[in-house]
Amino acid sequence: MHFTSESSADGVTQRDFTLDDVPGVLWQPEGLPLGGRPLVLLGHGGGGHKLGLGVVERAGRCVRGRGFAAVALDAPGHGERKRSAQDERFASEIGQLIAAGRPISAWVARHTSALAERAVPEWVAVLDALGERAEAGDGEGLGPVGFWGLSLGSVIGIPLAAAEPRIAVAVFGLTGHGSQTEAAERVGVPVRFLVQWDDQLVPRAGALALFDALGSRQKTLHANTGGHLDVPETELESAERFLTHHLSAGPGAAEAAGVGADADAKRQ
Amino acid sequence: MHFTSESSADGVTQRDFTLDDVPGVLWQPEGLPLGGRPLVLLGHGGGGHKLGLGVVERAGRCVRGRGFAAVALDAPGHGERKRSAQDERFASEIGQLIAAGRPISAWVARHTSALAERAVPEWVAVLDALGERAEAGDGEGLGPVGFWGLSLGSVIGIPLAAAEPRIAVAVFGLTGHGSQTEAAERVGVPVRFLVQWDDQLVPRAGALALFDALGSRQKTLHANTGGHLDVPETELESAERFLTHHLSAGPGAAEAAGVGADADAKRQ
Repeated sequence: MHFTSESSADGVTQRDFTLDDVPGVLWQPEGLPLGGRPLVLLGHGGGGHKLGLGVVERAGRCVRGRGFAAVALDAPGHGERKRSAQDERFASEIGQLIAAGRPISAWVARHTSALAERAVPEWVAVLDALGERAEAGDGEGLGPVGFWGLSLGSVIGIPLAAAEPRIAVAVFGLTGHGSQTEAAERVGVPVRFLVQWDDQLVPRAGALALFDALGSRQKTLHANTGGHLDVPETELESAERFLTHHLSAGPGAAEAAGVGADADAKRQ
Repeated sequence: MHFTSESSADGVTQRDFTLDDVPGVLWQPEGLPLGGRPLVLLGHGGGGHKLGLGVVERAGRCVRGRGFAAVALDAPGHGERKRSAQDERFASEIGQLIAAGRPISAWVARHTSALAERAVPEWVAVLDALGERAEAGDGEGLGPVGFWGLSLGSVIGIPLAAAEPRIAVAVFGLTGHGSQTEAAERVGVPVRFLVQWDDQLVPRAGALALFDALGSRQKTLHANTGGHLDVPETELESAERFLTHHLSAGPGAAEAAGVGADADAKRQ
């Protein structure tokens, strides 16, 4: 893991890095160690990148708000990464579909599925590297890990959570294609799943079917009115509470997070 | 409105009453006026009553936890009220259906629909009487009003919210029959709607269709795994926050509620 820059502001330290040519960014509370600290993996949406507004806002909630660490990667074909002709086509096609109120095409579903196949081992490698960094820091490995990503973030996150046992909880949503069913069935951790009731990009029946397919015994669906881009702010707050509830489950985790267990309990 | 008993404990005053032979109970913070105070109408489930555990717990959250007032009534044929042969049949049939894992029968749907037709004007009369009581107390009328009731509570609450403009927000759920569609379309206030994903009493498709039918521009569905009786505690906390967000919207309401506006904002 090669760190390329570091800056701190408002009690948060941000470090840009690359790992095997995959660009990422790591946030943690300034001056506090990574070891034992809850870590949230933040996935971005199609056409987005690791420092887009949606990612940065969620990182702020996790790190400034809850004392967690957070990490985001540029998905294959996104952000600073090399872009193929297919990647260019994907970015423009997503925008066109949303503007025209049309559902995800079979081509887009295949393309994002291929992105996920590349991205899953990249995330696993990042977790390995962060675990080594944590142990090198103060002898303690990674804390509990959660995943938070919608749309393309979930296309990647669902097979990631199915494959990666270190992920203990996830916030998914805004996706639902038959090609995702098999991986969803292999997810077993607590899940919060978001649906936009009037989502034209991701037809409702597909999203509900994907929620149904999730193997987790503990899963909750939240559906709000509006389209793909209309997830209300209240769902961000709610997801933050949900992740905190599951990542701060033990007294050790709460201490590592730098907030009192009592304060955390009151915030639930 | 004829009050029959009064007791106070833990900062909450409970007053049992009857209004035109309808038994009810009113809770408010001890020593604080009703006028201007957010008021939550609590509906109980089929076979339940106004002082069942579910109602009392929610009253505690609203009154002790948030400084609101709360009121519950025995639904027709329930609690202290005269019970017809049909009422007896309903209570036992609900229990049998749940035990056998069977869906609500057409007879039960018709029966609860008839209960709702009787209950709606009873709730309206209670609101009128409480409004008069509030004004007589300190010259200020009712504060903002919310409704919180699942299952039979929603069978009554949905047509009540459709008819009664004083209701500003509602928590509904665990119901979904075609006979409810017309009233649901006439509901326009913000709604939180609960579904149990594996509810055998209320098949999922019907519950989702009822959510879809709700006329409210602002509505959110929360679905959790499990059966009709398995709504998780987290949904109670979440509903409490949702009602508070909508009932404490103005500085006046927050002051009347007896909690600081800042504290309320932080608790969102």
